[in-house]
Amino acid sequence: MEVPPPLVLKRPLYVPSKTLMGPGPSNCSHRVLEAMSNPVLGHMHPECLQIMDEVKEGIKYIFQTLNDATMCISGAGHSGMEAALCNLIEDGDVVLMGITGVWGHRAGDMARRYGAEVHYVEASFGRALSHEEITFAFEAHRPKVFFIAQGDSSTGIIQQNIRELGELCRKYDCFLIVDTVASLGGTEFLMDEWKVDVAYTGSQKSLGGPAGLTPISFSKRALTRIRKRKTKPNVYYFDILLIGQYWGCYGTPRIYHHTISSTLLYGLREALAHFCAVGLKAVVRRHQECSKRLQLGIEELGLEMFVSREDERLPTVNTIKVPFGVDWKKVAEYAMRKYSVEVSGGLGPTVEHVFRIGLMGENATVERVDMVLSILNEAIQSSKLGIKTDLSKI
Amino acid sequence: MEVPPPLVLKRPLYVPSKTLMGPGPSNCSHRVLEAMSNPVLGHMHPECLQIMDEVKEGIKYIFQTLNDATMCISGAGHSGMEAALCNLIEDGDVVLMGITGVWGHRAGDMARRYGAEVHYVEASFGRALSHEEITFAFEAHRPKVFFIAQGDSSTGIIQQNIRELGELCRKYDCFLIVDTVASLGGTEFLMDEWKVDVAYTGSQKSLGGPAGLTPISFSKRALTRIRKRKTKPNVYYFDILLIGQYWGCYGTPRIYHHTISSTLLYGLREALAHFCAVGLKAVVRRHQECSKRLQLGIEELGLEMFVSREDERLPTVNTIKVPFGVDWKKVAEYAMRKYSVEVSGGLGPTVEHVFRIGLMGENATVERVDMVLSILNEAIQSSKLGIKTDLSKI
Repeated sequence: MEVPPPLVLKRPLYVPSKTLMGPGPSNCSHRVLEAMSNPVLGHMHPECLQIMDEVKEGIKYIFQTLNDATMCISGAGHSGMEAALCNLIEDGDVVLMGITGVWGHRAGDMARRYGAEVHYVEASFGRALSHEEITFAFEAHRPKVFFIAQGDSSTGIIQQNIRELGELCRKYDCFLIVDTVASLGGTEFLMDEWKVDVAYTGSQKSLGGPAGLTPISFSKRALTRIRKRKTKPNVYYFDILLIGQYWGCYGTPRIYHHTISSTLLYGLREALAHFCAVGLKAVVRRHQECSKRLQLGIEELGLEMFVSREDERLPTVNTIKVPFGVDWKKVAEYAMRKYSVEVSGGLGPTVEHVFRIGLMGENATVERVDMVLSILNEAIQSSKLGIKTDLSKI
Repeated sequence: MEVPPPLVLKRPLYVPSKTLMGPGPSNCSHRVLEAMSNPVLGHMHPECLQIMDEVKEGIKYIFQTLNDATMCISGAGHSGMEAALCNLIEDGDVVLMGITGVWGHRAGDMARRYGAEVHYVEASFGRALSHEEITFAFEAHRPKVFFIAQGDSSTGIIQQNIRELGELCRKYDCFLIVDTVASLGGTEFLMDEWKVDVAYTGSQKSLGGPAGLTPISFSKRALTRIRKRKTKPNVYYFDILLIGQYWGCYGTPRIYHHTISSTLLYGLREALAHFCAVGLKAVVRRHQECSKRLQLGIEELGLEMFVSREDERLPTVNTIKVPFGVDWKKVAEYAMRKYSVEVSGGLGPTVEHVFRIGLMGENATVERVDMVLSILNEAIQSSKLGIKTDLSKI
């Protein structure tokens, strides 16, 4: 037997150009895309290590932290979630997951695999978690680790009380993990001031970098706990004592841990450079203004936001109720087919209930907001006509 | 306190062009590099899924397998090692690691973290493992999983008896994991015919793709064992039942598992397309011819290969003894400084003992072989002079 070379690989690569206004990835700028066609570098070459140092400084800035243990995990955003949990959890630890959508459940799945005793504290549907709800769960479970997504992209909910949660965790001798994958760039995040122990974010959302490298940072307090573990972290690939050594975080010689993608480093470096040049506050302001404009437009179209309280709406991933009688899939397909614009449906608890419109990075502009509003309206109208036509056939 | 934007990110990105003739990554072709500046695609867009399908077919070809469970792990080569072990190992399983360099030890570190009882069978220094040595260890330990690197890049040793090991594993009801990170493309590998249960490879070596996506394949037999596990695999990110669902391996609807890097997919797709167009046998032949030419040249320069037996020499990563009195570091620095050519030192047991010269992908050509030989010679001569000069100063 011999497996022949596949015919599909004789065809040229086909990559259409789209406007990515779903929950991510967002579009990369030309600067980022061009950077990624630079020649590859070895993972221990001084020029590669230099770029890693630059990326590290950029990450410290976007997280507003001075943590030494600031680096990237070589993997998707989920690998940041894994690394946060894997390093902090020891067998039998009690872990509490804040739930405002799907990501707390995902973290729960991961943590159970690491041998944790997992509990959940769930917000009311479409709401953020209140300080009281979380304190009540802390009293009941006395967790060693508490996980919360600052922004949950499945529901479009933002958790505004991270600062208070930092205090709460200190009081209960608990470690605070904050997932900022969907929120960073769209809202304030002050890792050190808020006493967050682990934060990670998505490179491919408001940062406008490529997917595949996940910025992460561990507080000194978290690092001390990790150094005192009785057993090694369960996964070599996520062991931040080793990864941090490779990233030059601990003042010790760099030791090879894995082969990092220099290509993705170039892209992320350029995305961070742009982000830093514009400035954190200006980026956040722009994302918030765009979201406000979108929310106004949605109202004008006679549509309704999924998250009822304005101060609990995530500016980066906006969730809009699918009007009665409208098939969200047809709307999304219309927008893609006619305009090559991605408008997404829901995820998890919001499937079939919402549209998700991402205003992130390159797509957080007034022009894109107005464009997507107009397309959404046209697509909904057209889908209504479509339904009528379909019905008339019966 | 406020963390200011870092000054280093105001400087332009600096990426020098080098000829990467160390143990990997190797250089990417223009076709691969250019592909990676294409616009990003969403991880569930049909065009992205189409490219994943094409990549999957390409991987089946290079592994010579018909396995349904063929996909990529979104991470470095080490993530392939993790996924192989994580999915096959259950708590307390006996695992045997074949050692011909550093990679068996690395796999042992990972497996212990997954709760395995790990044993090692180690080859004599500079030799591959014989069938007898391995059989003896099988008798002693009765392993559930056996790991071996077909090529160990730290020593430049190739393990030629994988076919026999496939038989052996079936006889002992053991699962065979073969690491082909450094060997694939430089030597024959017939996954199905040799009854290999899990194989993974590096994208950034002979394939000439970018680092960051790791091709992997599981046999039907391995998949059956994984489906019958008492507990879920220890790591969500490496759970191949979930990843394979996303990759459309099992005939069930695609479900989002993580955000794959479309950028890296483009690069890997183009690398595979080139590899398939040239043909597996021709690629292997070219790598072997180049290595033979290098070995001849090494002899002519009065140098000696580290691996004494010709049939145990890995054609892709060639190890050459550092002559007495020569500082390998000065040689490598000379080659890099004067010619921007990477010649590497040893790793693990071979540190300070060998030079490692990679002849992989774009760098497996007669011209590159002749160039690197001439540079190596010049660099060694110059380093000898250097040492004399230094001594004269004392």
